[in-house]
Amino acid sequence: MNLPTNADVEAAAERIAPFAVRTPLLEAPVLNECTGGRVLLKAENLQRVGAFKFRGAYNAISRIERADHPGGVVACSSGNHAQGVACAAQLCGLPAVIVMPRDAPETKRRRTAGYGAEIVLYDRDTEDRQAIAEQIARDRGMAFVHPYDDPHVIAGQGTVGRELMHQAADLGVEPDAVLVCCSGGGLSSGVSLAVKAARPETQVHTVEPAGFDDFARSLQSGRREENAKTSGSICDALMSVSPGERTFAIGRQNFAEGLAVTDDEARAAMRFAFAELKLVLEPGGAVALAAVLAGKLPTANRTIVCVLSGGNVEPSLFAEIITVDP
Amino acid sequence: MNLPTNADVEAAAERIAPFAVRTPLLEAPVLNECTGGRVLLKAENLQRVGAFKFRGAYNAISRIERADHPGGVVACSSGNHAQGVACAAQLCGLPAVIVMPRDAPETKRRRTAGYGAEIVLYDRDTEDRQAIAEQIARDRGMAFVHPYDDPHVIAGQGTVGRELMHQAADLGVEPDAVLVCCSGGGLSSGVSLAVKAARPETQVHTVEPAGFDDFARSLQSGRREENAKTSGSICDALMSVSPGERTFAIGRQNFAEGLAVTDDEARAAMRFAFAELKLVLEPGGAVALAAVLAGKLPTANRTIVCVLSGGNVEPSLFAEIITVDP
Repeated sequence: MNLPTNADVEAAAERIAPFAVRTPLLEAPVLNECTGGRVLLKAENLQRVGAFKFRGAYNAISRIERADHPGGVVACSSGNHAQGVACAAQLCGLPAVIVMPRDAPETKRRRTAGYGAEIVLYDRDTEDRQAIAEQIARDRGMAFVHPYDDPHVIAGQGTVGRELMHQAADLGVEPDAVLVCCSGGGLSSGVSLAVKAARPETQVHTVEPAGFDDFARSLQSGRREENAKTSGSICDALMSVSPGERTFAIGRQNFAEGLAVTDDEARAAMRFAFAELKLVLEPGGAVALAAVLAGKLPTANRTIVCVLSGGNVEPSLFAEIITVDP
Repeated sequence: MNLPTNADVEAAAERIAPFAVRTPLLEAPVLNECTGGRVLLKAENLQRVGAFKFRGAYNAISRIERADHPGGVVACSSGNHAQGVACAAQLCGLPAVIVMPRDAPETKRRRTAGYGAEIVLYDRDTEDRQAIAEQIARDRGMAFVHPYDDPHVIAGQGTVGRELMHQAADLGVEPDAVLVCCSGGGLSSGVSLAVKAARPETQVHTVEPAGFDDFARSLQSGRREENAKTSGSICDALMSVSPGERTFAIGRQNFAEGLAVTDDEARAAMRFAFAELKLVLEPGGAVALAAVLAGKLPTANRTIVCVLSGGNVEPSLFAEIITVDP
């Protein structure tokens, strides 16, 4: 099993530089005041397509040999990976097929199609999306782009960690901890490669939805655990059943204790981001901030970086969350 | 009449540096694609208190001699100036009184009081807020902090222009135009001092709500015009009746043609900021972006900077705006 290293993250950074947004590392006095520490926010919700997923998708897709895959690329996703792959393929001049559940929100279908991708719908209850994608890949000579357990995807997401460590250094800051949302582990494992290369003492914590903390439990048991449920959290972007093979192999080396937050804590973080930070976060994109706000780790007199991973949220859900008086 | 100059902006920048956020100059590929130009966004919604107003307030209040004004500071505002003054006074260790209409939104009262300010309520229909503030200033030995027509306030807001020109230079970019929302003109006149000092060819355009374009009309007629109405726009932060004396004197020298946008155009810009930029803007904070999106000036192959001036919007209004399908 080939695992990416920080050298792959460096190579990815150079490759994606012309197209990815170098998102800001933000600091809000109000957040420092309420935590008693220094909290820095890596705002990947401001990335192209509204989430970090563009980085890994572009790093992987831009390396595809046309001779090997004349048909382009295929991916399964109803969320940010779909948009990341569609956008990266468009920039690379490659056709893209996205396999998406029939009940995916209309806005996500429209946005994915807006990047020129062909949408293939399937039925969640009766069909196997992986099998459909593999069939399409074979039939049409397309490369399958895995959402997380691919060395180039991991290295691409790792550029988030490389940038935030550079930006922290520009501020003269050495982070004590970096908090990253975690589903399959592509972002968190990639970020850990860059963070540990820059400063081995910095702790990298995954943050998962409570009840879907397969990565945290896997770190404890030493083997890849599964979640009992496959749905039932507001954090629709963080629903992978278990860690990837590669992402877990990296995480075992690099991760500190895994954290988890409830749906209510994620909602409260979205409200805080709206009211105090003036940022739009999706539920899964808010869990690292939620962990800090809910006191899941010590913050007093420490420097913590939270990765805000995405902001693609349905308007009706966002409206509901910000208008609740908790 | 003493007018501030760019030297005063430079001095203000040094004074506010320890407390003000150096807000990012953002760039979103999607905005460049839909305008055919390069659009940069100075995100003052990410400023302390959620709007640029902190800059001018801190620059003015930190210069107050305690011997002259032992009682602290007093200001009239139901909006961002109130929070800016309250926060700056708290940082300076001075008492603050904010004179606010009895019907001001609860969240604005609570946030202003949250910075330790005393709130004095008045009745819009029967009382004169200016007279109340002046009486308080005399009785309690307080300094009155004008919302815009004060040299230190103008110079403080001008640091927005200084920063954005530095940040543009760091990107290797020379802006063709800078668009700034305009009410009394403190922000726009201050920004123009710094922009014109850095690059005289760059055009500075005010953006006002349609029907409340007193500044645009004043620039045309050469004298300070008034708006016919004092209410009736969604842009509650941009309701000054006429330009200030100082701000108009500066604007006459520095401003290009004034622009105006309708409420619907401001709403559309807020929706765009939510869906595409993942930023929370208040109506008045969105008018510069609205002018670009609505095609109020040529953008193709030009570099335009929009100042996003604030993000303090009631959750219920924001929810209503983002859930409308236009």
